[in-house]
Amino acid sequence: MPVRLAEIVARFGGDLAGDGDRSITGIAPLDSAGPGQLAFLSNPKYRQQLANTRAGAVILMPEMARESPTACVVTPQPYLYFARVAQWLSPQLRPVPGVHPSAVVECDVPASASIGPNVWIGPDAKIGEDVVIGAQCSIGTGAEVGEGSWLHSNVSIYAHCRLGSRAIVHSGAVIGSDGFGFAREAEGAWVKIPQTGRVLIGHDVEIGANTTIDRGALEDTVIGDGVKLDNQIQVAHNVHIGDHCALAGCVGIAGSTHIGVRCTVGGGAILLGHLHIADDVHISAGTLVAKSISQPGNYTGTVPFMSHDDWLKNFSRLRHLDAMADKIRSLESRLATLEKNTK
Amino acid sequence: MPVRLAEIVARFGGDLAGDGDRSITGIAPLDSAGPGQLAFLSNPKYRQQLANTRAGAVILMPEMARESPTACVVTPQPYLYFARVAQWLSPQLRPVPGVHPSAVVECDVPASASIGPNVWIGPDAKIGEDVVIGAQCSIGTGAEVGEGSWLHSNVSIYAHCRLGSRAIVHSGAVIGSDGFGFAREAEGAWVKIPQTGRVLIGHDVEIGANTTIDRGALEDTVIGDGVKLDNQIQVAHNVHIGDHCALAGCVGIAGSTHIGVRCTVGGGAILLGHLHIADDVHISAGTLVAKSISQPGNYTGTVPFMSHDDWLKNFSRLRHLDAMADKIRSLESRLATLEKNTK
Amino acid sequence: MPVRLAEIVARFGGDLAGDGDRSITGIAPLDSAGPGQLAFLSNPKYRQQLANTRAGAVILMPEMARESPTACVVTPQPYLYFARVAQWLSPQLRPVPGVHPSAVVECDVPASASIGPNVWIGPDAKIGEDVVIGAQCSIGTGAEVGEGSWLHSNVSIYAHCRLGSRAIVHSGAVIGSDGFGFAREAEGAWVKIPQTGRVLIGHDVEIGANTTIDRGALEDTVIGDGVKLDNQIQVAHNVHIGDHCALAGCVGIAGSTHIGVRCTVGGGAILLGHLHIADDVHISAGTLVAKSISQPGNYTGTVPFMSHDDWLKNFSRLRHLDAMADKIRSLESRLATLEKNTK
Repeated sequence: MPVRLAEIVARFGGDLAGDGDRSITGIAPLDSAGPGQLAFLSNPKYRQQLANTRAGAVILMPEMARESPTACVVTPQPYLYFARVAQWLSPQLRPVPGVHPSAVVECDVPASASIGPNVWIGPDAKIGEDVVIGAQCSIGTGAEVGEGSWLHSNVSIYAHCRLGSRAIVHSGAVIGSDGFGFAREAEGAWVKIPQTGRVLIGHDVEIGANTTIDRGALEDTVIGDGVKLDNQIQVAHNVHIGDHCALAGCVGIAGSTHIGVRCTVGGGAILLGHLHIADDVHISAGTLVAKSISQPGNYTGTVPFMSHDDWLKNFSRLRHLDAMADKIRSLESRLATLEKNTK
Repeated sequence: MPVRLAEIVARFGGDLAGDGDRSITGIAPLDSAGPGQLAFLSNPKYRQQLANTRAGAVILMPEMARESPTACVVTPQPYLYFARVAQWLSPQLRPVPGVHPSAVVECDVPASASIGPNVWIGPDAKIGEDVVIGAQCSIGTGAEVGEGSWLHSNVSIYAHCRLGSRAIVHSGAVIGSDGFGFAREAEGAWVKIPQTGRVLIGHDVEIGANTTIDRGALEDTVIGDGVKLDNQIQVAHNVHIGDHCALAGCVGIAGSTHIGVRCTVGGGAILLGHLHIADDVHISAGTLVAKSISQPGNYTGTVPFMSHDDWLKNFSRLRHLDAMADKIRSLESRLATLEKNTK
Repeated sequence: MPVRLAEIVARFGGDLAGDGDRSITGIAPLDSAGPGQLAFLSNPKYRQQLANTRAGAVILMPEMARESPTACVVTPQPYLYFARVAQWLSPQLRPVPGVHPSAVVECDVPASASIGPNVWIGPDAKIGEDVVIGAQCSIGTGAEVGEGSWLHSNVSIYAHCRLGSRAIVHSGAVIGSDGFGFAREAEGAWVKIPQTGRVLIGHDVEIGANTTIDRGALEDTVIGDGVKLDNQIQVAHNVHIGDHCALAGCVGIAGSTHIGVRCTVGGGAILLGHLHIADDVHISAGTLVAKSISQPGNYTGTVPFMSHDDWLKNFSRLRHLDAMADKIRSLESRLATLEKNTK
């Protein structure tokens, strides 16, 4: 059902420029949107797409409003505005409530919850109102899933772990597997340390496909409110991740590392164990973080790529960097002697 | 059932050298094959294994035929020849057609398809002829699986995603999870961007175990024909991967990056977002690709490993590389002065 | 049920110092343990926690016994001692034996085994005594699971793979998916090499959540006794991992690499294919191992991270390392000339 552009502005704020009666049926990218669609322009890099857009209306910043060939909604944060409108125009259809006859449910479940085919929910689990549990999920004994949370198919939550309200958990995610803790015998064999802690996850958290979060060893692994974890992230035992952190795909965090609030970590970065990362720290993709970070800011530790031939020439030098430094020191001292003697 | 060597040559081509009546029952590596087995020699590195092989016959290149102590099939591409013969000699046994009584199937399924135990297939899904769906798979509403495709156990395909014909999808793979898209509020909270695109996958694609492919944000994530993805690869939203690319395990590709045709990416490489990678580009294992690549060729960006003590000595210098460059520049200028003065 | 401290010492050895009648109900970290709990002190770094501990008793080394404000168990290896006591005090509750009515089991299963909801076990599989198979696991035709092994939910074991006794396999792990083997046609298309080997896994192995182990191409992939694999590890076809190796999360091992016994590999490290790694080799986190290693020892190949601005300054030099080396050589020769001339 289409909505009038003016109705969007009435609901979400911003300034309307142009025809408020324009009828909007959905959202689309600036360069492919049609007359019934709403687009946005946030990054000035895409400014030239604005001139040729066929979008019904565009959300943009005040400084770009003048350039718009069509109706627009003017707001200082077009992307954030777009996110809110998009959620409203493209709501996810929740499955109908009820427990599928093939599901094995060994606890009470509210009538508003939707429990999919072939699910298992163990004894003493607590399932909140309006929860959706997708096909083939496994919810262990005594685990908790907060109200409004949505687990897609094939998610595993181990016993006694806790997930807050309004979580979104994607397929294949595992919450509460044993941490990797072993003591070594003299002859090299490993003796398992029982992992008796839990995973405690706050509200409004999203967890990506095939992401794994280990339970704590003696204490708990803790994920704060509003944390967003992309796919294939590994969170080891006793890690703490502060509120509103966002971690991109393939990040690995070793045991007992604590990350402050509002941090971001780029894809494939690795954080070693027992570190403390301050609030508002931003780690670049592919960086190995081997020390604690006490100051907010951006941190990077990656090498440039180049053609393979150039790489062979340049990177073989890394084996001799110490020798190069020695040579420079020696050159400096010889030159100083010479300079003195020829004065 | 054994086949005569001459029968293999009649079917797959190449030149027969030696006894065409030799009886072949299977395939094996050159160094362990027995008299009834067919082996191959492709990499000249393993040439010395040829002299001692007990194989019934060997597939090899013309320049090595003379060295063979046994019957052989001579062809310019022994590995490719071997692949074709091996497929013929070791066909995978498809499960019998039919829907297992424990499966929950909410759409029509052809009689030739095999739907395993505890599977869920949602309404309006389209399942092609001869499809095999392994135990505990989940196929969302309106998703499509092309004819002859084989999904191993525990695969999740989200609603409205499309998989072409003759795909092989390994256990734990997830196709169509939400892309990682959020706008940030002033105080640091993240607002989800609905991910309304799909995943569109071509024909003859193989997808490894626990690989994840996110659906597009507004448009689609697109995987071309003949693409081969190894295990634990992460493909973010709006990525395009061109026909006949092959990506090794643990590769991560960030959002909106487009990869040309016939590219290869080594294990653990990370490609940042919004890049364009030309056709016929080959990225080495472990490389972080932070810029677009416009020319075909091999690209690398990794550091050598060494004993930990050598590493401590050499890599600590990286923190002072800029200072080293300054010192060299200063030495050059001082030396030039001195050279002029002592002329 | 509480146990007396003296009873622990009688069972596990070590020297008791202090009140053996102290009642112990569980284990806890040194800094948060209460009067009924047993803690340990292994790393001298945490020595100062000892003075203030409220633990009922502490396991520690002889040289620290004098500093203990409470009863203690003195042993040269406190962490190992703790592991054994913790296993005894915190045994995992095994589910009751029996086959859940929703499970689809096509082979014989011993009465002592516990087969969870919605499991599938194929024909000719061999399930040992006291095995636990969690919800939604899939065990392929002819696969073997040794006695006392515990598979958590959503584990996939492909046909004919073999898991030894007392294994622990976490959710989402995949054992026996096809290795990544293809021959390339002239025009770039890939032809699949059938993967006809198996995965053979020894006794006392632990496999982390979402870890994947590919079956061999022609021969088998082999994991030794006592090997511990963390989460999200990728083990490619034909890899051999020796007894008592421990690999941290997100490690990737390419095809046909052989790793000796008692090796450790840090998180996120990548080992290329066809390498031989000696016994007792320790690879640091994040290291790319591109060559074989013939000597025991510690090996590293990672770059330091720094503030993004410092990184820009220093790491851009890597593109010119070869030129820097040339400049140093030229400086050396010019300086030598000058030194000779001014003598």
